Amino acid sequence: MIVYPEIIAVREYCRNLRHSGKKIGFVPTMGYLHEGHLSLVRVAKAETDAVAVSIYVNPMQFGPNEDLQKYPRDLERDLALLEKVETDLVFVPSEEMMNSPPSDIRVVPHALSQTLCGKFRPGHFEGVVTVVTKLFNIIQPQRAYFGQKDAQQCIIIQQLVKDLNFDIEIVVCPIIRENDGLAKSSRNVYLSSQERQEAPVLYQALQLGEKMIREGEKKRDKIIGRMKEMVYHLPTCTRVDYIEVVDAETLQPLVEIKGKILIALAVYIGKTRLIDNSVVTI
Amino acid sequence: MIVYPEIIAVREYCRNLRHSGKKIGFVPTMGYLHEGHLSLVRVAKAETDAVAVSIYVNPMQFGPNEDLQKYPRDLERDLALLEKVETDLVFVPSEEMMNSPPSDIRVVPHALSQTLCGKFRPGHFEGVVTVVTKLFNIIQPQRAYFGQKDAQQCIIIQQLVKDLNFDIEIVVCPIIRENDGLAKSSRNVYLSSQERQEAPVLYQALQLGEKMIREGEKKRDKIIGRMKEMVYHLPTCTRVDYIEVVDAETLQPLVEIKGKILIALAVYIGKTRLIDNSVVTI
Repeated sequence: MIVYPEIIAVREYCRNLRHSGKKIGFVPTMGYLHEGHLSLVRVAKAETDAVAVSIYVNPMQFGPNEDLQKYPRDLERDLALLEKVETDLVFVPSEEMMNSPPSDIRVVPHALSQTLCGKFRPGHFEGVVTVVTKLFNIIQPQRAYFGQKDAQQCIIIQQLVKDLNFDIEIVVCPIIRENDGLAKSSRNVYLSSQERQEAPVLYQALQLGEKMIREGEKKRDKIIGRMKEMVYHLPTCTRVDYIEVVDAETLQPLVEIKGKILIALAVYIGKTRLIDNSVVTI
Repeated sequence: MIVYPEIIAVREYCRNLRHSGKKIGFVPTMGYLHEGHLSLVRVAKAETDAVAVSIYVNPMQFGPNEDLQKYPRDLERDLALLEKVETDLVFVPSEEMMNSPPSDIRVVPHALSQTLCGKFRPGHFEGVVTVVTKLFNIIQPQRAYFGQKDAQQCIIIQQLVKDLNFDIEIVVCPIIRENDGLAKSSRNVYLSSQERQEAPVLYQALQLGEKMIREGEKKRDKIIGRMKEMVYHLPTCTRVDYIEVVDAETLQPLVEIKGKILIALAVYIGKTRLIDNSVVTI
């Protein structure tokens, strides 16, 4: 496994791979890796000839009052984990390198970033797609792997590739959960033991929504209402950003419950904002 | 010379070139080619192994009251000219292909698009860089060629490549002029014979500004004032969008006349908006 902090070295390495006819699979991450990330690397490993992982806590995608400073970091542990799953290249750029001023140009999603998380994190998805565009241009992979946990991010990245004609196939991999159902997330480390104990209720709420839809419930408000009840009931729940039932492709609220449906939520457990989602097709 | 309307065919062709170790030079155009465009193809031809030219009148970069509908088009003539300068590939996409809805993501320049032409053509440079990004991703050239006549566009494209980490070298080629000094432009065809006769005064105004700077004039207002006098004096001049003296890299108005200076103007001769510029270093 090679670890490069320099863009120029990464470019050279990837160019050589491409020239020798090798397929590159790319997994962009913010580090503090868990089984979710590693599952992406494993799928990439199976589908391509060489796997590149980036570790970069992207300041552009954090709001001014968000957790950029305290976002968990442990490069040594991350590298050990990536070594174990036979990652070929790890790109660990510095902030200066990725964001050398004066920068002037951003990649901006519109309607897709106005709903769900985008509504509560203005500028977040602009930061995501700008940095993902940069990483795509540096690595130039044939395939890039994203986790379904960030459902809105997956949709926006797929739109990015389509709208800007990237020659890259986006692969979305399933959510990896703890045994009790809590979706794996780097931010789970923030949870106190009581919060951690209560957090799986988010998944249970999703399962409830799913069940109601499968059993024929057609009233969006009723589904959301029942899920909210369940979540508000938690002593450690301090805020609900949203619990939503939307079209899984356009991310617009559903008037009629049918087709491919995304049930998504963002809830604060204590001071920690957790997201989770489930896709149902009926 | 191969002419492709299809993205997928262009991709395949360019991929094969790259895999066989060939360097691709790319010249994006809106067609109705003149000696300015052909000079770009000639430089590209000399510096790379294969030259790709795109012809696409990009609706995104025209404002609602601009000349998209009447913009001159003559594909047959363009192809004959490109054949003569030994172009390898011509990409002629349809509007549907380049802008298939629902599109949601744009590439957006900020400060660099707020001055000069950007001030008078809101959304113009967003349209330019979005489409150039798409074309870069389809062709994936090693070098791309732009004409200095569109000075602000050149600066913004160079920033695009830097900010989004495109692995592409931008080559800016000199302005090509008629014998009487008028900068070659597809829009010159709009000019009546009187307008055509008077239009070279724009170049003479630039030369005046240049001369004043070289002779030590330090007052920006005085330079601009003298140039404006000269241009307003024309019977066919109907409007001056701007005559400006700015830093040639940041495009910000110069407080002090020194360094690399861009003198730029956008002037209506009759109903036709013409731009021209000159770079002076002192």
